[in-house]
Amino acid sequence: MIEPNSRHPDATSLHKGLPETGNRLLADVSLPAAVIHEAALAHNLAWMQRFCEAHGARLAPHGKTTMTPALFHRQLQAGAWGITLATAAQCRAAFAHGVRRLLMANQLVGEANMAIVAGLIEAGADFYCVVDSAENVRQLGRYFAARGLCLQVLIELGVDGARCGCRGQNEVMALGELVESEQALVLSGLEGFEGVVHGDDQESQVRGYAWQLVEAAQALDHDGLIENPHPLITASGSVWYDLVAEVFLEAGLGSHFVPVLRPGCYVVHDHGIYRSAQHAVLGRRPGIDQGLRPALEVYAQVVSLPEPGLAILGLGKRDIGHDQMPEPLRRHREGGSIGDIRSVAGWRITKLMDQHAFVTLPHDERDEPRHDPVRVGDIVALGISHPCLTFDKWRRLCRVDERLEVIEVMETCF
Amino acid sequence: MIEPNSRHPDATSLHKGLPETGNRLLADVSLPAAVIHEAALAHNLAWMQRFCEAHGARLAPHGKTTMTPALFHRQLQAGAWGITLATAAQCRAAFAHGVRRLLMANQLVGEANMAIVAGLIEAGADFYCVVDSAENVRQLGRYFAARGLCLQVLIELGVDGARCGCRGQNEVMALGELVESEQALVLSGLEGFEGVVHGDDQESQVRGYAWQLVEAAQALDHDGLIENPHPLITASGSVWYDLVAEVFLEAGLGSHFVPVLRPGCYVVHDHGIYRSAQHAVLGRRPGIDQGLRPALEVYAQVVSLPEPGLAILGLGKRDIGHDQMPEPLRRHREGGSIGDIRSVAGWRITKLMDQHAFVTLPHDERDEPRHDPVRVGDIVALGISHPCLTFDKWRRLCRVDERLEVIEVMETCF
Repeated sequence: MIEPNSRHPDATSLHKGLPETGNRLLADVSLPAAVIHEAALAHNLAWMQRFCEAHGARLAPHGKTTMTPALFHRQLQAGAWGITLATAAQCRAAFAHGVRRLLMANQLVGEANMAIVAGLIEAGADFYCVVDSAENVRQLGRYFAARGLCLQVLIELGVDGARCGCRGQNEVMALGELVESEQALVLSGLEGFEGVVHGDDQESQVRGYAWQLVEAAQALDHDGLIENPHPLITASGSVWYDLVAEVFLEAGLGSHFVPVLRPGCYVVHDHGIYRSAQHAVLGRRPGIDQGLRPALEVYAQVVSLPEPGLAILGLGKRDIGHDQMPEPLRRHREGGSIGDIRSVAGWRITKLMDQHAFVTLPHDERDEPRHDPVRVGDIVALGISHPCLTFDKWRRLCRVDERLEVIEVMETCF
Repeated sequence: MIEPNSRHPDATSLHKGLPETGNRLLADVSLPAAVIHEAALAHNLAWMQRFCEAHGARLAPHGKTTMTPALFHRQLQAGAWGITLATAAQCRAAFAHGVRRLLMANQLVGEANMAIVAGLIEAGADFYCVVDSAENVRQLGRYFAARGLCLQVLIELGVDGARCGCRGQNEVMALGELVESEQALVLSGLEGFEGVVHGDDQESQVRGYAWQLVEAAQALDHDGLIENPHPLITASGSVWYDLVAEVFLEAGLGSHFVPVLRPGCYVVHDHGIYRSAQHAVLGRRPGIDQGLRPALEVYAQVVSLPEPGLAILGLGKRDIGHDQMPEPLRRHREGGSIGDIRSVAGWRITKLMDQHAFVTLPHDERDEPRHDPVRVGDIVALGISHPCLTFDKWRRLCRVDERLEVIEVMETCF
């Protein structure tokens, strides 16, 4: 049953979640589909840019969240200084789509990955990565010297018991001296990630860690180990960015160091862990106007109502992050008007399989139709938690306007 | 920092996990990478085909597991009758890559999805999907009649308290009559999925459910409701396929019905849940020679050794399924020979973040080097559990021979 001569199709038309018969999300799009709401997106882009500028910091949004070049372009157009990435392959994808300044907030390990980065530097990328071990510094020094290239590196300061990074300022200074001894490496500042700080009073721990970053950066500078004339000091994920920004501002680092913040999830925000985190930001900073808005939703259809109190949706772990269960937000009738919103009060997703979600309904929606019974084919909008692990389930996302018309199909490059 | 005129690159060269500087997995491939071992793959393809043939059943491997057209081709070349898929978009992708017989073991819901399937039928696909509700039968009947097409449907018999499907034979018969009344629908058999059966004695519950499928199929046939002259009876995932095959064989259905089994995970097997399931199969069937072999591994590098007893790998939830933690299998030195295998005894993955894995080492591998200390850059082969949720993390996988040379880069089409 193979047709060996079948024409290899245009890959752009083979994905899930695409407009098929028109641009109306509620009528023409193959569901499930990942949807970005333009109004909330535009709000978030401007909001975070304004926040960073108000704190004298540059914004290098973490691109690993979305890996969506069209969103990188929107972030850069809004004023971002560069894009942060997690791996060499991600950096290559971003560069190929026009991003010139790449902050790889991770170690560059393995000669194949070094070869990718060497190619980017040769092609004109302004590239930075982090180091935290003598072994890796020697590997990088050897590789880039052999290629006749200079590599800009930041030393990572970590947290005891957490992820990567030098443990304490002494290790930072020793590594700084080793970097200085490698001709091909240009020490360009200090990097950290406060998202791995743990403990009882996280807020004060994060502040304390941000001050450690400041002190280590100043010590490297004081000892003349930083070679880059415009060195970076960079930290911050999407949870504690306000505290990091405050400390960098208070420390008055902006006169010499370039303070760079790296939140990623803000761009589409969520209905889960980052909504809670943003509530905390607004609680700490009552002067800030409004918050971020959830822009990413996944739309799916009811495919079965097999017994009272149970609906099965045609969406699963293949389509949506499952660190936390998605949250039903609204229901529409297929082909209906966007104003015709139906209730999902009491709906609860209780189980996700690869391609199915189980919804417990608050009472019998099938056998005792009330004013608004659920039907097979009904469309449910779902809120997500942790956008990184929803984006990577999609090769294409639909950007929609307030009428739920698809105005752009956005490609991801995971 | 956008280069608006940058040439849009060839997307085929932008992925992670690809050979960069040659074909040696331990030297030339950008890690992390998903790796399929040819010897185990070939063994599994032949093993399951032989199993099905020995039971008088056809094999329609579930393609949603891999969504890898090159593997679909291998399965069909090994003798598979068709490919099972989960969604309309998956069916389109498989058809575009040459698969003509498509068993969509799910409900077809939504006019955009129906439009996709109508296009496949018009293009010559031999397509089947399942129905379990009057609403969906009417929707499909209306849509395909308007398109002037016939749609082959199977009625799904479900399990109380589980996923989709009619609850009991009475519902099956009533739905069969409704299908008969729809001109555009051709009732073509019965479908079930024993993987959702639950209870204390699962083995006897699965057998009981398989017998219910047989009886419901025979009842539909007896009442003259089945229109297709070669109707299907189909069930089985990757855990209980042996029991379903036995019941279908015992029932002697092969004279009229085409018994179709749909395991998916067998093709690469795993080091987790399906390994356990296969042990159970071999326990129930001591006469069967050998078992399936794990063919899919993910290779990653040690990127940091930040403190005694802790290694950080450059791989995370973006790269590997995380229903269960991956299992370190072997360690190699980058650039080393494939025979130079180093110990990972006592290594345990304790945490996965998006792009990082935390490994607890059995004792201090960094500060007290023994005969075989771990180094930054060391390559670790990881066993996975539940291949479906590892495949979907990759756009390309590397098929390797016994020398760990990449002999094919396989594309996925999720």
